[in-house]
Amino acid sequence: MSGSPVRFQARSSIEQVEEGNDLAPRFDDRGLITVVTTDADSGELLMQGFMNTEALQLTISTGEAHYYSRSRQVLWHKGATSGLVQTVRELLVDDDQDCIWLQVDVAGGASCHVGYRSCFYRKVPVGADFKSRQKGGHVELEWTETEKVFDPEDVYGDAPNPTIL
Amino acid sequence: MSGSPVRFQARSSIEQVEEGNDLAPRFDDRGLITVVTTDADSGELLMQGFMNTEALQLTISTGEAHYYSRSRQVLWHKGATSGLVQTVRELLVDDDQDCIWLQVDVAGGASCHVGYRSCFYRKVPVGADFKSRQKGGHVELEWTETEKVFDPEDVYGDAPNPTIL
Repeated sequence: MSGSPVRFQARSSIEQVEEGNDLAPRFDDRGLITVVTTDADSGELLMQGFMNTEALQLTISTGEAHYYSRSRQVLWHKGATSGLVQTVRELLVDDDQDCIWLQVDVAGGASCHVGYRSCFYRKVPVGADFKSRQKGGHVELEWTETEKVFDPEDVYGDAPNPTIL
Repeated sequence: MSGSPVRFQARSSIEQVEEGNDLAPRFDDRGLITVVTTDADSGELLMQGFMNTEALQLTISTGEAHYYSRSRQVLWHKGATSGLVQTVRELLVDDDQDCIWLQVDVAGGASCHVGYRSCFYRKVPVGADFKSRQKGGHVELEWTETEKVFDPEDVYGDAPNPTIL
């Protein structure tokens, strides 16, 4: 990384945070901010993650998505292991500046460690659909993607699975 | 609400959670799950919020988005005050089932308490764009929406602003 590091403004008022031009993100008591990542072309939701201060600074300065891995407790340059780097086309911040929206181009076309294009490959029936399908309050998930883009074992080998039970 | 309440499965294995048909959501140590809400037609990210168990059950059973308000610490039927109800067209869950994606139709066309269509109405320059614009590491946010859909004072009156500094 070259040049000035990214600096954030202190949060001084609701007016400044919601209606001003200052970048004054709010990190929670774990030091993290929520990140929502969508495909810049299709608009599809790819993943939801977290950044710490350093990850947000690096994402802004390099234009490549960096996250904080809660399971591994490390700064995580997305794609460093898998090659599935996310190049940021747009980075937006929400009204109270406690959430970041990344619109990205994904090398390799996949974002999910399980091997799918998106992490969101199963849906839950809702409303009338729930009522007609539920058995004792339980419903089955429906799959929206059926073919994996890559084989996780080829890409990650023996690396521990990040899912926490 | 009528009929059986929505029931979730216990989380027993990574295989079950990632590759199974069971709805087995993971609520964090605050009892919350992250929610990402997009416009079902445009795909635009509208807001990011949280649900507790009850909010997720009610969203599934009624087909209308319910959240948990961290600032007010109450179950929150979105639109109960503002009229901007979100009707859920699709509800998806991610690989490790710690995030919910709602695709919604929004009554009134706005989702943000500040009055904009989306909560994400400002962007941050990244990469080369950041480097050319930054002054001492600071950059100004750029606005992507300039006209409010509604006047928050008309809709919320004297209700306290949910933004936490």
